[in-house]
Amino acid sequence: MARKLFSLSSDFGVGTPGIGIMRSVILEMCSGAEIIDLWHGIPGFEITEGAWTIESVAQLPVGYHVCVVDPGVGTERRGIIIKTKRGDYLIGPDNGLLIPATRMLGGIVKVVEITNEKFMRKPVCPVFHGRDVFAPAAAWLSKGARIEQFGQEIDPKKLVKAPYEEGSVSNGTVSGEVIHVNHFGSVAINIINDEFAKSGIKYKDDIEIDTSVKRINTKFLKAFGEVTKGEVIVIPDDCGRIEIAVNQGRFDEKFGVKVGDKITIKKSL
Amino acid sequence: MARKLFSLSSDFGVGTPGIGIMRSVILEMCSGAEIIDLWHGIPGFEITEGAWTIESVAQLPVGYHVCVVDPGVGTERRGIIIKTKRGDYLIGPDNGLLIPATRMLGGIVKVVEITNEKFMRKPVCPVFHGRDVFAPAAAWLSKGARIEQFGQEIDPKKLVKAPYEEGSVSNGTVSGEVIHVNHFGSVAINIINDEFAKSGIKYKDDIEIDTSVKRINTKFLKAFGEVTKGEVIVIPDDCGRIEIAVNQGRFDEKFGVKVGDKITIKKSL
Amino acid sequence: MARKLFSLSSDFGVGTPGIGIMRSVILEMCSGAEIIDLWHGIPGFEITEGAWTIESVAQLPVGYHVCVVDPGVGTERRGIIIKTKRGDYLIGPDNGLLIPATRMLGGIVKVVEITNEKFMRKPVCPVFHGRDVFAPAAAWLSKGARIEQFGQEIDPKKLVKAPYEEGSVSNGTVSGEVIHVNHFGSVAINIINDEFAKSGIKYKDDIEIDTSVKRINTKFLKAFGEVTKGEVIVIPDDCGRIEIAVNQGRFDEKFGVKVGDKITIKKSL
Repeated sequence: MARKLFSLSSDFGVGTPGIGIMRSVILEMCSGAEIIDLWHGIPGFEITEGAWTIESVAQLPVGYHVCVVDPGVGTERRGIIIKTKRGDYLIGPDNGLLIPATRMLGGIVKVVEITNEKFMRKPVCPVFHGRDVFAPAAAWLSKGARIEQFGQEIDPKKLVKAPYEEGSVSNGTVSGEVIHVNHFGSVAINIINDEFAKSGIKYKDDIEIDTSVKRINTKFLKAFGEVTKGEVIVIPDDCGRIEIAVNQGRFDEKFGVKVGDKITIKKSL
Repeated sequence: MARKLFSLSSDFGVGTPGIGIMRSVILEMCSGAEIIDLWHGIPGFEITEGAWTIESVAQLPVGYHVCVVDPGVGTERRGIIIKTKRGDYLIGPDNGLLIPATRMLGGIVKVVEITNEKFMRKPVCPVFHGRDVFAPAAAWLSKGARIEQFGQEIDPKKLVKAPYEEGSVSNGTVSGEVIHVNHFGSVAINIINDEFAKSGIKYKDDIEIDTSVKRINTKFLKAFGEVTKGEVIVIPDDCGRIEIAVNQGRFDEKFGVKVGDKITIKKSL
Repeated sequence: MARKLFSLSSDFGVGTPGIGIMRSVILEMCSGAEIIDLWHGIPGFEITEGAWTIESVAQLPVGYHVCVVDPGVGTERRGIIIKTKRGDYLIGPDNGLLIPATRMLGGIVKVVEITNEKFMRKPVCPVFHGRDVFAPAAAWLSKGARIEQFGQEIDPKKLVKAPYEEGSVSNGTVSGEVIHVNHFGSVAINIINDEFAKSGIKYKDDIEIDTSVKRINTKFLKAFGEVTKGEVIVIPDDCGRIEIAVNQGRFDEKFGVKVGDKITIKKSL
């Protein structure tokens, strides 16, 4: 990228005024910025969905990624900057939100708490750190401020834990949980495609999905067009995770599945 | 335009992550790009609504227009580039989606199937050709790649048919179908204003609308303010088509009308 | 800002096609423009919510701000440009929509009616002045056109009145009305923080909210994290106004409150 790339994600609601305001804070400091809205439809206060969202920065060019799902804003919870191995900076609250994305970006290089008021927009409003702390931090970093200047380093082990770990894979069985329901009602689970492959389940294999409530027999495939309308399908999604869907229908509603639900996928005997 | 203009449309849902990801693919290749989101709220898999959406590119400067409503992604359906007489490139699946817009852009100059992997983002994900095939094709075209380099030419007559043709107009009668319901519940029909004029129906004429279910007596007017709140009105819309609406109300809900319904408008005797 | 800043707001619906079309009108005339979508989810035809929205331009850099909530489009209602003391230009219909923002921008310097067709996109569609009159006016102003060139000056006192005035504050009591319900169901009232302070109500004071229907005992605080989930809270919001909310819940639904409702806040005895 010739221009600096920023991404913004939040639970503010798609297209709501706070987004344009955060955007203008960055543009005012960094006039040539390219700012991408990744997703602002993260359900309110849902750290799991937020963490899933920021995993997608791995599909963007290296940049400055601000994410705000922040029920603790204005309290003692810390604001942090994480530098990742790929070279990105993740900026947001220390509530677990930013951790899963670091796994997709090669891991954590350094974390600091944001305490240096020099890098904040004043006065700092206790209900909008996105505008007054996180967006300015991203802009300052892009202009050459060093991460050490923002505050004390934090041991990554002392950060608030991620809202989900990776699911488990054994021979013929995959166990995970739902971490996102998309616009079409399809669900993503906490199993990346490369891990799934270790289960030995292969393209076109018969499989059984267990949602705790219901068992569904289907196949592991690659594209929606391989089944007829209304059929259940398990595929590698476009973000590197395993997706379960109903072709041209809503898996979430049909089977009463929501974020946090346990899912097991087994190779059929 | 001093900078290259791109537009993106899809049924991904307004403001969802895939949009930002497609945007970044273009920006990474073409740093000075201006990328406009035309509409991402096209109802899922609805080719008719999608085709109506892309007609609006006629109101944008000449550019590179990517549209993704693509229930057949990952199957044998073809990905195509259409060059139009106005100079635009339309990029998306060969499922009829792109055809109506070509009528608004002076017609088709050339069509090719996209098969040259050199112009794709690798690996190509079978469920996200918007990111891996269509957005990169748009960026490459803007950088000077010639349409012939992407694949074999296709005879426009052999493309999948448009989801709608233009309605018919005779003396005093206009017959069409609903091709879009907008945010306010007003409907657009497949009759352009210039064709409607051939019916002899003029400004302020009394007319009768027949929705198959209901007959409504009203007038052909120009602006909502010409009727009181709650009244039905037929007007030329802002995109060149005939619109039927309830002033400050929802025509679709009041009369149970949806995309695909037949509509007849007659001059009252 | 090195580049010219524009903002767009409307009741068109977030992410709908008309927004991209207005954006392209500005970009075509002013290639280096930075265009921010402030909010397009203003409820249809709601002047009060629209006026609240444009108050937020005070948080953006000085710029050209187009707002379209315009039930009278195509009738005799005037299109206007307001120059504010801060240096911004507000462009939209003369229906009261633009007035409250001027109070946040230091007041009105000059108002003109837009009548000079030289600055319009032709033909002017009677249902889309946003595209054909207001967006082009913003672009022309940014290119150096003087406000006097657009039409006759209007005495600010002769503009259509604002949809709300500021609420009243006396010792220990604040009386106002709801002017906005946000994405989370929290409400903003027509009392700015500096005025509220004159009531003598201080941080952590016990207060009573009277919504006409219900009385609620709570405290005046600063951040959501100061109360537990589900508790009512009154705080200064991020835009300079007083906000009433339920922590991680919807105040509007819980207490049946909507835009226009009277609200009184009293210091508890």
